[in-house]
Order: sequence, then structure tokens, then C-alpha cells
Amino acid sequence: MMVWLDDRLQPAAAARIAPTDRGLLLGDGLFETIRLSGGAPSHLSRHLARLSDGAAVLDLPLPWTDAMLAEALAAVAAANPGAGSLRLTVTRGPAPRGLLPPAVVQPTLLITAAPAADPLPPARLILARSTCRNAHSPLSRIKSLNYGDGVLARQEAARAGADDALLLNTSGMVAEATAACLFLRRAGRWITPPVADGALPGIARGLLLEAGFVAEERVTVEDLAQAESAFLANSLGLRAVAAVEGHWMTLPELALTAAARILA
Amino acid sequence: MMVWLDDRLQPAAAARIAPTDRGLLLGDGLFETIRLSGGAPSHLSRHLARLSDGAAVLDLPLPWTDAMLAEALAAVAAANPGAGSLRLTVTRGPAPRGLLPPAVVQPTLLITAAPAADPLPPARLILARSTCRNAHSPLSRIKSLNYGDGVLARQEAARAGADDALLLNTSGMVAEATAACLFLRRAGRWITPPVADGALPGIARGLLLEAGFVAEERVTVEDLAQAESAFLANSLGLRAVAAVEGHWMTLPELALTAAARILA
Repeated sequence: MMVWLDDRLQPAAAARIAPTDRGLLLGDGLFETIRLSGGAPSHLSRHLARLSDGAAVLDLPLPWTDAMLAEALAAVAAANPGAGSLRLTVTRGPAPRGLLPPAVVQPTLLITAAPAADPLPPARLILARSTCRNAHSPLSRIKSLNYGDGVLARQEAARAGADDALLLNTSGMVAEATAACLFLRRAGRWITPPVADGALPGIARGLLLEAGFVAEERVTVEDLAQAESAFLANSLGLRAVAAVEGHWMTLPELALTAAARILA
Repeated sequence: MMVWLDDRLQPAAAARIAPTDRGLLLGDGLFETIRLSGGAPSHLSRHLARLSDGAAVLDLPLPWTDAMLAEALAAVAAANPGAGSLRLTVTRGPAPRGLLPPAVVQPTLLITAAPAADPLPPARLILARSTCRNAHSPLSRIKSLNYGDGVLARQEAARAGADDALLLNTSGMVAEATAACLFLRRAGRWITPPVADGALPGIARGLLLEAGFVAEERVTVEDLAQAESAFLANSLGLRAVAAVEGHWMTLPELALTAAARILA
């Protein structure tokens, strides 16, 4: 794999992250996972806008223009033929110890590629009991590197023989899956949990909301037990939900076709 | 600076973290900050026990014995004369993309050194309003790499002209400072917030509790406003609190002397 690091394309095996990088030591950074379609990043301007929003929350000034980032992404896509997605990671870069960022910040920009994933079968989900999302932290609204709760919930799902887990927030409202937003059909309407309840403002989620396909509405655990259908969506694609905690649902085949058209 | 990485001592400038390391990409790892006293790690067995507890929470089997870790720490201390502390960082190592850890994990072990810090003047604290701690997540009880909330709160303190911030949990109870536990004198007794309210089970905190110097008790925002004295403690040392949100307190000079004896 060829990656972008330190302002240039280089083999992943040679690319070096410094052991003083705050992304590594403190989770001090952001990322975007971007689908490639015909070799080009999908919904790029939305990804770059979200990156910019996240950087503002972290008070992390980015030294790159959108055009520079687009060029670097295109270079990684071109250097990895057949890749299905790119991941753009920005950190606050190397620094002396301490939580407070140094006066002069030299952010790290890393872009990696991943193979296209096969379509996944309908997901059997559990409710995560090991942890929950903190909707009171602004980190729940940005794609920060602090993915520990997601990793814990995903491991819990695997131990239970499930495909993924839904995370509740600290008030017990449903927030999202470990790396995808949740869409639920309840009383004949498609809904998705609000950002205020801990849902990441996903790119796919935003497109489905703007298209009027789905409405933002709070989702309780009881709603899950009564849902007619559900699916997950993130920037890489859509996945039907087969069951949540043993409550089997009708596969949302027509809805997935319609959603895929909106996200194309 | 000489660091330990990949089973050997090497110059920091040459040490390479892989761009696929899950510590960098997902905050999937742990750390310990260890004070050096006469060149030797203080309270080492407690630090290694906490690391082991954290690894169990993350379901991250560590391939090193305590003796191996002690040897690596000693090597870094010896290679950095005059260092005041070491930081031991463990991550789940390089992996393909995805939240679920790979079947075979090769954890990363990084040990770095930092100069001894000068004693700090009494701290003026604010209450963090930008974010809060999630006491419902097991990550609040281990020293995970997910330090984003601490970084946000520390930046907020700096913007307010304060030295540090106290974080509340999602229920509004006082948890801790951004990188230290809080000790408060209330009604003539020293208390510290319970782990269940989001306090990290700090090594210094544990020693002060075991010595009977302080009791674990819930701390409200009102308690802060009525506190007689307060101090912060972490593995690197003690720091008096001068004021919280403009409420000035008596400096706890005798208490700091007594606490320093317990932590020595």
C-alpha cells in the first residue's frame, strides 16, 4: 500500500509516525473514511467540511486547503488501484508531554487506502452493555480518534456472536452502532437518533435526512423491540439489520434500494 | 532522547510507529506515567497492576511479563540521565482497518522519558463546561489513550486564564482534573470523588486512600464552593489548589507535606 504522510506519497512500510505524535499518545486528532467510486472520493466536500468542523471543536488549525487535501487523496487513490476506500487521519502532531497543545503545532496528515469490502449480510445486533456514548461531550459529534467505546462495544458484540452493537447514551437513549448510524422503521416512518442523543452526524445520515427519506427522532430501547425494519449506514455503505437482541425484523429491501440511490 | 520500541532501545528520532497502529487510528491502548526517583520507577508494581487491569478491560493480552517491562523501563531510565518520569504506552498494534481487533494481535510497547518538571505554583481551576467525563464507560476507570475530553478541558482552562479544569460527570458530580485526582477538605475531612463518579483510580489516590489520609466521597459543585482547601495529585506529584471558579481557598501546606510523605 502507498500512503500519504509528511506531504508526500510513500510506501506504508516506510511511513513513520513519530512516537511523540499526540494522535497516538492522547487520541488528539480526527479522521474521515471516504468511499471511492470509480477511483474518486465520494461526497468529498462533505467529508472535508466535517473535518473542518471537527478541527474547530478541537481548536486545531489545519494548514491545508481543501484543494491540497483533495490532491493528496487523489494521489493515494491513484497509487492504490482497486482500493475501495481512503482514510484521512489528522493529528495534532508531535509534541512534548502534557495535555495542553504546544504553541506551534505541526499537524500530521496521514492518508491510507483499504480494499473494497464485500457487501455484508444482514446484521444481528445487540445492545452494548459494556459501555455507552457520552452525548454531553463534543467528541460524540466529531469523528475523533477516541474510538475506545466503539472498540469495546464491537468486541462485546463479537463475544455474543453478533455482528455489531448499538450504543446507548448515558441517559439510556439509543445513539448509533459502533461505526454506523442507525435507521429504524417505526409506525411506518424511517427515523434516526438525533445528534443530541449521541449520534455522529454521519455523511450518509446527512444525505438521507436532506432527501427527506428519514426524520431525526429519539429512539428508545422499546422502539427497537417494536421496529418493523432497520438498517445501518456509514460512508462505506448500507447494511440491513436482521435482528436486534433477538427481535427479528423484515429486511428493508426496497428502502435500501432507495437509500442507495440517494447516497450514490 | 532514547526510547524503547519494538523490543529495543533506540533514538526517538529513529523510532517508527506504523501508520496502521490501532493506538494511533482508534485510541486502542493504554499508558502509565511513572515518576523516577533516584533514577528508579516509583510504585512500579502498582503501575504494572493498573496496566494489567486496563488490558483486561480492553481484552488486550499483553505478551510481556512484569519483569520484562521493569527491565525495559530501567533501560530507558538509564539511557536518559536526568529524566524525571517515564511514560509506558501499550497499543493493540498494527492491524487492517475495522474496529474489531485482528485474530493475532502484536501489541506495541513504547517507553519514553521526560525531564523532571519544576514544582508548580498553586493552581487556579475552573469547572469545564466544554465537556464532561463518562463515568458509565469503563474507559473512565483505566488509563486509556482516549484523552480527548481531557485535552478539550485543558484548552478551555488555558483560554480562561486558568491552570487546569475540573471535569464533572454526565450527572453533574465532580470527577477529577484533566490529568490528576482532586482532594478536597470539607467539614474538616479530606475527601476525593469515587471511581463510580468518573475519577481515574490514580496511583497517588490509591496510596492516600490506603493510608487513611482521605476518604472516597461524592463531591458536588456546591462542595467546591464551600471547600476549605484542595489539592491535585497524580503519579508525578502534588499541587495545591489556590481557587476553583474564583472561590479562593487556604493553601493546604501541612496536608501537602503529609501527603508527600505517604507518596514518597
